[in-house]
Amino acid sequence: MSSPTTPMELYGKVAAQGNTVRLLKSNKATEEEINAAVKELLALKLDYKTLTGQEYKVGIPPTNSTPVNNNGLAVEEDGGDYVDPWTVQTSSAKGVDYDKLIVRFGSNKIDQDLINQIEHVTGQKAHHFLRRGIFFSHRDMHQILDAFKTKKSFYLYTGRGPSSESMHMGHLIPFIFTKWLQDVFDVPLVIQLTDDEKYLWKDITLEQAYKYAVENTKDIIACGFDVNKTFIFSDLDYMGQSPGFYQNVVKIQKHVTFNQVKGIFGFGDSDCIGKISFPAIQAAPSFSTSFPQIFNGRKDIQCLIPCAIDQDPYFRMTRDVAPRIGYPKPALLHSVFFPALQGAQTKMSASDTNSSIFLTDTPKQIKTKVNKHAFSGGKDTIEEHQQFGGNCDVDVSYMYLTFFLEDDEKLEKIKQDYSSGKLLTGELKKILIETLQPIIAAHQIQRKQVTDEMVKQFMTPRKLAFDF
Amino acid sequence: MSSPTTPMELYGKVAAQGNTVRLLKSNKATEEEINAAVKELLALKLDYKTLTGQEYKVGIPPTNSTPVNNNGLAVEEDGGDYVDPWTVQTSSAKGVDYDKLIVRFGSNKIDQDLINQIEHVTGQKAHHFLRRGIFFSHRDMHQILDAFKTKKSFYLYTGRGPSSESMHMGHLIPFIFTKWLQDVFDVPLVIQLTDDEKYLWKDITLEQAYKYAVENTKDIIACGFDVNKTFIFSDLDYMGQSPGFYQNVVKIQKHVTFNQVKGIFGFGDSDCIGKISFPAIQAAPSFSTSFPQIFNGRKDIQCLIPCAIDQDPYFRMTRDVAPRIGYPKPALLHSVFFPALQGAQTKMSASDTNSSIFLTDTPKQIKTKVNKHAFSGGKDTIEEHQQFGGNCDVDVSYMYLTFFLEDDEKLEKIKQDYSSGKLLTGELKKILIETLQPIIAAHQIQRKQVTDEMVKQFMTPRKLAFDF
Repeated sequence: MSSPTTPMELYGKVAAQGNTVRLLKSNKATEEEINAAVKELLALKLDYKTLTGQEYKVGIPPTNSTPVNNNGLAVEEDGGDYVDPWTVQTSSAKGVDYDKLIVRFGSNKIDQDLINQIEHVTGQKAHHFLRRGIFFSHRDMHQILDAFKTKKSFYLYTGRGPSSESMHMGHLIPFIFTKWLQDVFDVPLVIQLTDDEKYLWKDITLEQAYKYAVENTKDIIACGFDVNKTFIFSDLDYMGQSPGFYQNVVKIQKHVTFNQVKGIFGFGDSDCIGKISFPAIQAAPSFSTSFPQIFNGRKDIQCLIPCAIDQDPYFRMTRDVAPRIGYPKPALLHSVFFPALQGAQTKMSASDTNSSIFLTDTPKQIKTKVNKHAFSGGKDTIEEHQQFGGNCDVDVSYMYLTFFLEDDEKLEKIKQDYSSGKLLTGELKKILIETLQPIIAAHQIQRKQVTDEMVKQFMTPRKLAFDF
Repeated sequence: MSSPTTPMELYGKVAAQGNTVRLLKSNKATEEEINAAVKELLALKLDYKTLTGQEYKVGIPPTNSTPVNNNGLAVEEDGGDYVDPWTVQTSSAKGVDYDKLIVRFGSNKIDQDLINQIEHVTGQKAHHFLRRGIFFSHRDMHQILDAFKTKKSFYLYTGRGPSSESMHMGHLIPFIFTKWLQDVFDVPLVIQLTDDEKYLWKDITLEQAYKYAVENTKDIIACGFDVNKTFIFSDLDYMGQSPGFYQNVVKIQKHVTFNQVKGIFGFGDSDCIGKISFPAIQAAPSFSTSFPQIFNGRKDIQCLIPCAIDQDPYFRMTRDVAPRIGYPKPALLHSVFFPALQGAQTKMSASDTNSSIFLTDTPKQIKTKVNKHAFSGGKDTIEEHQQFGGNCDVDVSYMYLTFFLEDDEKLEKIKQDYSSGKLLTGELKKILIETLQPIIAAHQIQRKQVTDEMVKQFMTPRKLAFDF
């Protein structure tokens, strides 16, 4: 292999080739085809050993690739898990140990009691993301429920860093859940596109970052948000449209030191001052005065933030600052990470097209990606699989179904059949493909209907359908 | 003396009491009065020696008070001069050694040749601030003159940090000069009020900082600027009114590291992230795209910044960043510092009412302040003064006349008469008082005529009377 490759990239290639071999075998391909694929697999395993000094092991990524965060500081966390807003890595094929993360971050587990309360006050069945532990952690959700019970207002805030024009399925998770929250609670929603962050972190122009923000907005609108209840904004635009937003940014920036952002985000002396001050810009929408046009200048409206757990450092900082500048602390609902096709060890990357299903993928691309790249918890031969059964804990196809197959009973049956060996890997993948294809197709139809005029409407600072 | 006092404060008190004694003597006060004043002076000198371990010496401030900048870093610069945007200190009663500063900052001296060129291309006699070396240093002023000759556009940018409601005479210097530049070059002018900076640095609320900005704007308008050619803005307001401004701020913030602002401004790890990122906000108005409403989106309009030399660090940084983000470097004209009444060792402070003549002072207050606090280069007795003459190099009253007495011949005669001993300290102070009183009175009348409506007009983002 002549091209330079990282251990992690090579690990992904070996895993993908292993999948190919398995598929060929279960599809009863010719001996010649299978032998060629096995030969390629063995060559890749040898490359892997040469590069890493370790044998390739299924589900165990290269251990010498201790994650190096953006600032060149090597970081090791307990259990081999590393989570910050830019890096998510774990040595376990099951993914990050979320119970440990709750302890380390000091948040609270969403337990059955809280889920019952949510169902009780809203009169709705809890979303399957709640029922299945996909949103698994929270801060102050009880306050939000108390507010809702006493008809006190709150609002929702979520966001996205527009790192490219296309979004993948994992990016939909917070929006699907936020849409459900908006439907059951009927509250205002603000959605931040941190195009300024992407400009600061990536090698792109301001114009590109803004273009990504607008394109991503179309995908977000396609999730079905109500224009009368939702304000979507690009930082690059909105900072120049509302003195209230900038004034909150400055207030936050006065109350956070370089030492603090160094501790929370790992910034270093050679980082640009834009990165160093950016956390205040992600924090500011947590305060209702950042949106005077929506909240009429009221500063006491609490905020509820549904987001992936890697964004929590921003909001730990925000919650620390809030009382010092006279604002309520935002409440949070944290989700697990959506696993990459290659396995739950890493967060998906919008820049690696094979690591995820994109919202622009054709039915054929979805089929090929799942078949070729989705990490399998199945055994190498049909005989072994039928004898020992597959492992749902590490099987990415099964994991994806927990996100996108709403039918609890059907999902449970798939789990039993796969674990017992009755359901083969190819069959499981087929179920996933047939689950994803219509979802993506429907999204694409929705997105096509999003006009520039609609984008403009959602992105115009204005009063929403709530009186404050 | 029971109240806690710094060596510098005590130094000022001794100097003031010395003045009192001199005045009593030259006004032929009773022996009793003079003795009481001398006794007070001796007591203060004793306090001074106790506090500093040094004898009080006229014109030589306490040497053990090495300036400590905002970040607790003790800094010593060559010749004992220390200059940054927050601290100006020197051990010389003549003030900072500006020739050395030019070498250290890497700027260029405004020599007679440049002054002749300015007069030549504008067809106007150079302002006395230029003729007398009050604006003494520049960067790229030749480029500006070349542009003017070839009818290429440029614009003026100056500003003020609104640290309190009232401004003193020293604060007028950049505005008086900028007004002259605007008159002779007929170009757009933008004036930045860094209320965000003052909020970040001082123990005040955002609302106070903004109020100071509006009050200061009235004083600035009273200098006679043309509303059709001048845009005055508060950062806290304008950041939320123009995406162009914020987008330039982010561009600059991407291209400046913490290491750089640490080196330039002395920021430390315990500084808030607002201070660390602020230099980009003072830099951004140097680029015409920060004002799309004025320059119609053009990014090639060069900027000329008249300011006191202590602001140069911001613009050295700006000039470093400019070519990397595709903008022309701003040109600069640097002024000396306006000396405090107590002497040229320090910059005046808006928080010490006795260190300066305020724009709100009554004729009586002006008289009292000059008589009581203006550091004198005269001798202790009339006899000595007549024999040896006074020292204009350290005499604050004389220095103030160089700023505010426009008549070159009259000023020269005063210098000769004071140096020869013919003009007494009391007489010199009287000339100063009679020069300042009508200037301040006229300013107060002008300011009274500034309505809220006018403030709003100047501060509204709009096209000016120039087509781009």
